Amino acid sequence: MVAPITAASACAFHTVKLPSQNYSTKEGIKRGTNNLGQGHGLGVKRASCGGLQIKANARNYNDDAKISRVATISSIRQNFTIRSYEVDANGVASIETLMNYFQSSMIDHCKTLGIHNNNLNGSTNEMIKRNLVWVYTEMQLSTYRYPKWDDVVEVETWLSTEGKNALRLNWSVQDFKTNQMLNRASSVCVLMNKLTRRLSKMPEEVRREYEPHIVNSRIIIEGEDKKIPKVDDTTADYICTGLTPKWSDLDIHFHVNNAKYISWILENIPQSILMNYELSAMSLKFKRECKIDSKLQSLTEVCSDDNNSNNNVEYNHMVRSEDGVEILRGRTEWRPKPTNSFDNFNHVPEAFIKDF
Amino acid sequence: MVAPITAASACAFHTVKLPSQNYSTKEGIKRGTNNLGQGHGLGVKRASCGGLQIKANARNYNDDAKISRVATISSIRQNFTIRSYEVDANGVASIETLMNYFQSSMIDHCKTLGIHNNNLNGSTNEMIKRNLVWVYTEMQLSTYRYPKWDDVVEVETWLSTEGKNALRLNWSVQDFKTNQMLNRASSVCVLMNKLTRRLSKMPEEVRREYEPHIVNSRIIIEGEDKKIPKVDDTTADYICTGLTPKWSDLDIHFHVNNAKYISWILENIPQSILMNYELSAMSLKFKRECKIDSKLQSLTEVCSDDNNSNNNVEYNHMVRSEDGVEILRGRTEWRPKPTNSFDNFNHVPEAFIKDF
Repeated sequence: MVAPITAASACAFHTVKLPSQNYSTKEGIKRGTNNLGQGHGLGVKRASCGGLQIKANARNYNDDAKISRVATISSIRQNFTIRSYEVDANGVASIETLMNYFQSSMIDHCKTLGIHNNNLNGSTNEMIKRNLVWVYTEMQLSTYRYPKWDDVVEVETWLSTEGKNALRLNWSVQDFKTNQMLNRASSVCVLMNKLTRRLSKMPEEVRREYEPHIVNSRIIIEGEDKKIPKVDDTTADYICTGLTPKWSDLDIHFHVNNAKYISWILENIPQSILMNYELSAMSLKFKRECKIDSKLQSLTEVCSDDNNSNNNVEYNHMVRSEDGVEILRGRTEWRPKPTNSFDNFNHVPEAFIKDF
Repeated sequence: MVAPITAASACAFHTVKLPSQNYSTKEGIKRGTNNLGQGHGLGVKRASCGGLQIKANARNYNDDAKISRVATISSIRQNFTIRSYEVDANGVASIETLMNYFQSSMIDHCKTLGIHNNNLNGSTNEMIKRNLVWVYTEMQLSTYRYPKWDDVVEVETWLSTEGKNALRLNWSVQDFKTNQMLNRASSVCVLMNKLTRRLSKMPEEVRREYEPHIVNSRIIIEGEDKKIPKVDDTTADYICTGLTPKWSDLDIHFHVNNAKYISWILENIPQSILMNYELSAMSLKFKRECKIDSKLQSLTEVCSDDNNSNNNVEYNHMVRSEDGVEILRGRTEWRPKPTNSFDNFNHVPEAFIKDF
């Protein structure tokens, strides 16, 4: 039996152990920690299967659910140890690394839910029948501190609704040792028919597959509702041309991996900023898909440079094809690098979760 | 007391447990497995600290060594779970992923040995005093099967000698569940003064820091002694120009990460080959360092294409700066992708370790 979306809004949570889950962390295993009130919005009793922690809500919950994959799991927490090759020239996790963790933990979340048919596609049975795949339409990211090499971070991942035809993916990243909030991110996905390449409404059958796992709270990133203006040749301060996706940028759909778009944006940022500033917030709107034979240009407009009073820097971005078709709009905000890695904790906003 | 290099050649091994080590694997912990005769050359009793297994040789060994970081550890085994973003468009671990694992496990090996001062530089105390860093001069890789998403691989890492002024780094990669050999690789490193950017002889003090940890056996890759011819405009079949390192390609020395060179080589391979073939062997000679402001060209010469009788493909490669200075020479060999992932196991040569 499948509950309607609103049925997932119960507030009492229980732990659910899935026997086949066995994720890990270099830091070992943290079991059954009650982590209420840590500011990540789903502060409830945690179960741990290795480094993977699963949270479930109570409605429709019974003993059978303990080993059931169709059920009431609301989020997972998964640990990642920052590897030496995942840090950038500053010695901290790169933005691409965070994006990779988000992608990986969302796939694992859906695998845990048992709805993705144990594949890398992120497709349910009903989606496969209809040739549907998920595509990103937007993404927001807020960073408070960047973890460094060998740090262990705990990524919490959950799904929420976004209108009738979309899903919202939510992530929060905490320092595993201290529980301090490091990053928050949120994305919207819609369905695309992979044969016609056209966006699709969400069929009722697909909605039913997801709705038991929808959580009625979502990450809110400050400034996410700001309109991102178009950047063109007249407004751009930097233009990088001749960008082409490489084989290694492709995912198994032969799509360009979305972490790659961020590399294209970052490569247009002046080196002095990359060396002395760190990305504090990012908002992206994906307009078109990009494939292996695309020829692209990255345009960047300086909105606020490092000469202004608060020392923060802000850019608008556009990635477009050589014939002018928009692929992506974006906005990035940068702050001076902290002299002490804990400097930014004053800036973590307390209320970042919206309950429906 | 530091033993001479030859003192590390004892054949009896003991397990050494370093209390601070706590590496992990999704597959959990395999403890104290006696894994003699698995064809990885250092088949001895294994100790496990989480997913990290450490082997040590007997000479100078006593109870104190159990918690000593100056000691007789000969190799580590470390597990990596192939993450979703580490696979390529074919769904198997990319070459860059393997290179990243090699880099990471070698850093962890040297950290375990206690000689790298807990930094990412790979520098010992005596190297830091003299502004010396390690640079790669060559690398060889042989692949038998590529692990796929969620597979767990066990990377064994050890150091051996290479003449008076170099070190050889050795890696073997096995399937953690089956112990089947997947990949073998070997690199040569020499010292460079990071102020003058000139190669340096190995000072006696640096040699003494490494020599207790040198193992007198090394990976031999078939064909590694073949000369790699120069490729120029007259012999090249494919030339890719306008290559520039990106910010995200830099390591903490502001050097281009060596995995990036491989991307540049791979991007010159025709898409039909990338889709239908897999890299079976690679040999690289690094000639010059490459920095953020380098402008590069990648040249590829077809030595043997897919029309010949055995269906294998072979290329010679060169990466050079726009003014013609050689950065890298390489050779790659490609075989048709297996229809069954176990197809290639017949090709694993038995004798691949050279004992001195």
